[in-house]
Amino acid sequence: MAEEECLTELELAIQVLVFNFYKYVPRRSLVRNKISKSSLRKMLQTEFPHMLTDTGNRKAADKLIQNLDANHDGRISFDEYWTLIGGITSPIANLIRQQEQQNSD
Amino acid sequence: MAEEECLTELELAIQVLVFNFYKYVPRRSLVRNKISKSSLRKMLQTEFPHMLTDTGNRKAADKLIQNLDANHDGRISFDEYWTLIGGITSPIANLIRQQEQQNSD
Repeated sequence: MAEEECLTELELAIQVLVFNFYKYVPRRSLVRNKISKSSLRKMLQTEFPHMLTDTGNRKAADKLIQNLDANHDGRISFDEYWTLIGGITSPIANLIRQQEQQNSD
Repeated sequence: MAEEECLTELELAIQVLVFNFYKYVPRRSLVRNKISKSSLRKMLQTEFPHMLTDTGNRKAADKLIQNLDANHDGRISFDEYWTLIGGITSPIANLIRQQEQQNSD
C-alpha cells in the first residue's frame, strides 16, 4: 500500500477496521487469521460503546453473533467480521439518513 | 449517536464509511437510499486511488461491480456498498497479515 499520508479518508478508515480485526487475532494463531467468539464479544464491548448503546441495537448485534455461532467453526474470519460490522452499521446508516431527511424538510 | 468526541477510533472509522456512502446518494433520491452504478464507479476511482492501484486488485473490484450489475435493480444499497468494500478490503487484509507474519519471523 502507498505511504499512509497519501491515503484518502476512506482508505484510512478501512485501515482502522483492518487493524482492529488483527488487534483481536492472537499472535500465536495469526496463521489461521481468525478471532474467537469470546474475543469478538470483548471487541464489541470495547470498540462499540456508543454505537451499540445509543442506537439501541445491542440485541441486533447479539443476534448477529448468534448467527455466526451457528456456523460451529468456533472462529470468526475477516469476512465474517466485516459482515457483522455491516449488520451493526446498517441500522445506524438508516438513522443518519432519517436525520438528513428531517434536516432537509 | 453520542457526541463525536466520545466515539472510539473504530466508531469514527465506520462513520466515515457511512458518510462516504451518503456523499454519493443524490439529495433528490435520498428516500430511495441508493446510489447509481456510475456513481459507484466514480467513488471507487476517487476514494480508492491507492488501495485499488497498489494492491493490484482493480480487476477484482470490476468483477464485484459486475456482480452487483447482475442484480439488474440499477442501484446500490448501503448493504451492497458495504459488501463491495468488504470484497475490496479482504485481499488487503490478507496482505497486512502476510506482512505481519514476515515481521514476526
